[in-house]
Amino acid sequence: MLYELNEKVIRLEQEGKRIIKFNLGDPDQQTPPEIIEAAYKALKNGKTKYSSSAGEIELREALAEIHGVPADNIVITPGSKWAIFAVMYSLLKKGENVIIPTPHWTAYDLTARSLGVETRLLKTRLESEWAVDIEKLKSLIDKKTRLIILNNPNNPTSKVMNEKTVEEIVSIANDKGIKILSDEVYADISFVRTKSILECDGNSNHIVIKSFSKTFAMTGWRIGYAVADKEVIDKIVKLNQITFTNVPVFIQEAALKALELRDEIINKIRGEYKRRADAACKLFSDTKLKFTKPDAPFYLFPKCDGLDSEKFAFELLDKGVAVAPGTAFGDYREHFRIALTVPDDEVMLGLKIIAEAFR
Amino acid sequence: MLYELNEKVIRLEQEGKRIIKFNLGDPDQQTPPEIIEAAYKALKNGKTKYSSSAGEIELREALAEIHGVPADNIVITPGSKWAIFAVMYSLLKKGENVIIPTPHWTAYDLTARSLGVETRLLKTRLESEWAVDIEKLKSLIDKKTRLIILNNPNNPTSKVMNEKTVEEIVSIANDKGIKILSDEVYADISFVRTKSILECDGNSNHIVIKSFSKTFAMTGWRIGYAVADKEVIDKIVKLNQITFTNVPVFIQEAALKALELRDEIINKIRGEYKRRADAACKLFSDTKLKFTKPDAPFYLFPKCDGLDSEKFAFELLDKGVAVAPGTAFGDYREHFRIALTVPDDEVMLGLKIIAEAFR
Repeated sequence: MLYELNEKVIRLEQEGKRIIKFNLGDPDQQTPPEIIEAAYKALKNGKTKYSSSAGEIELREALAEIHGVPADNIVITPGSKWAIFAVMYSLLKKGENVIIPTPHWTAYDLTARSLGVETRLLKTRLESEWAVDIEKLKSLIDKKTRLIILNNPNNPTSKVMNEKTVEEIVSIANDKGIKILSDEVYADISFVRTKSILECDGNSNHIVIKSFSKTFAMTGWRIGYAVADKEVIDKIVKLNQITFTNVPVFIQEAALKALELRDEIINKIRGEYKRRADAACKLFSDTKLKFTKPDAPFYLFPKCDGLDSEKFAFELLDKGVAVAPGTAFGDYREHFRIALTVPDDEVMLGLKIIAEAFR
Repeated sequence: MLYELNEKVIRLEQEGKRIIKFNLGDPDQQTPPEIIEAAYKALKNGKTKYSSSAGEIELREALAEIHGVPADNIVITPGSKWAIFAVMYSLLKKGENVIIPTPHWTAYDLTARSLGVETRLLKTRLESEWAVDIEKLKSLIDKKTRLIILNNPNNPTSKVMNEKTVEEIVSIANDKGIKILSDEVYADISFVRTKSILECDGNSNHIVIKSFSKTFAMTGWRIGYAVADKEVIDKIVKLNQITFTNVPVFIQEAALKALELRDEIINKIRGEYKRRADAACKLFSDTKLKFTKPDAPFYLFPKCDGLDSEKFAFELLDKGVAVAPGTAFGDYREHFRIALTVPDDEVMLGLKIIAEAFR
């Protein structure tokens, strides 16, 4: 449904319509010019050949240093989504199951279904500030549970998990011999500290997924990575070898440049999204919308009692604003997702059109 | 084994050793500068965002025109290898089987195995000029056969299939309701005319895989495409959506520029490989090596009676020359593959080192 909506937006734009695209987590910011120049330099230097399916060693070493692990524990992937697919493809068998707190990013569920893997959804609610119920989590685990998929900070709620909750989930996973796949692609630009599962005791069994997309405004470059034990990394590398071979080396060199400029870029991007999030919260405060204040970019996931968000999303598209219906993230028909990833003037215009609908 | 050898070569080079790399089908030619400039222009124009998982419509339309099909029958993929994986992932179930004439490119077999699909290998021989035995092919087909994988021109033999054989195989596939996956990535630069399955009657059921890699010296850019009926294309697009999302748009714009310069680039690249192939044939003519004259770039697949090519490949690596052992392509221990994809001076030096070993 979300993908169908996205493809429809693309078609409308090709027809010349102007759409304020709150539907995609695709930053309006341009990729910083230094990163573009690094790619160009690499292209001119002949970095246009096949290379290692694990990724360039310089980039893996730079990431290894950031995460305090050996380079052997890092693999470069064409986006974080690929890393998620590769982990699930490599580790899961048909008939096994994974546990996913909801609301959740569509791709986890679609990937599991594509692989014949059962998803056990653990509902969290706006009314309890999206807290994961640990007892409910335990009750979902059985002998065929292989993976718990966390998304911290969360898409679509922009909620950062309570540190104690992260530790409790790691502890349960360790007890039961289950791996955690922790998608932490928004962590580097979150407004509050995000505890990574890499910081928890006994973490060596788990997998962290990261991306250059959100942190450096590089979504369309398709580059992300996984941090995991060598056994998991080797499995992903083997899958890379028979699928896309390697992320283009000139893209990896651009990513390496991004890491050099990391602090500067992150501060700028985080500041911009914080301002937008604050503005949205202020604007929605006198509407019928309920929501939690975002802990991280880019999303708001407001609720209006009785709303049919699928109907609403298509009606809103007629007014030139695209949002993602809550049903794309689980059993959340009364919610919809706003991605604050359009230029500032469009942000305010789009938010006002939405606010108007809920006054 | 081939991948292990490739990764070893990369390690040796990182240690500062100079290796003549006949082991990879990775052209020494630089990507033409116009293509690089097109990518740079697109990067500067902000073509760094998410886009359609089917590929950019301008590129699909340009390819559709070349192949005489609607744009809906084209999907852009990160290399032809991804298209092969995606077709097999989307169409095949565990326990089904595919038929592959050998010698064959490693990836077909590895992908099938990874998916739990049985491969039925149909051996062809140097002594019969790599002809496919149609009766043997028929005898391999049963109720669980879903796909015949052709590679025309062939890697590693550089043999172009007899046109009548192509027609016969299409006819058998149509009779039995089996799809053909025809990997034709070397066809645009072949030295002799290559009949595509797209030119055969009743072809609408089959799938052609193509790539920008070999035709335009763009291997490391990772861009290829599939031509198939809309049902197959839609399945690949759905897999694209949950894996890598889209080939970077700036890479697709570079590919569009490549198509503009198509005739010029193809003539140049084809001419260079033809000269190298001729030189190799001449040089090997007074050795113990048996081989067929290449119909296409880039490979020679010579045989020496009694050779253990795995042992030979590692011995030759000590002399600074990398080749791929024949065992990487099926039951061909006495063969090895030479990819004539290194600069001219290295080609001659490397070929002389090999010739010396067989005098």
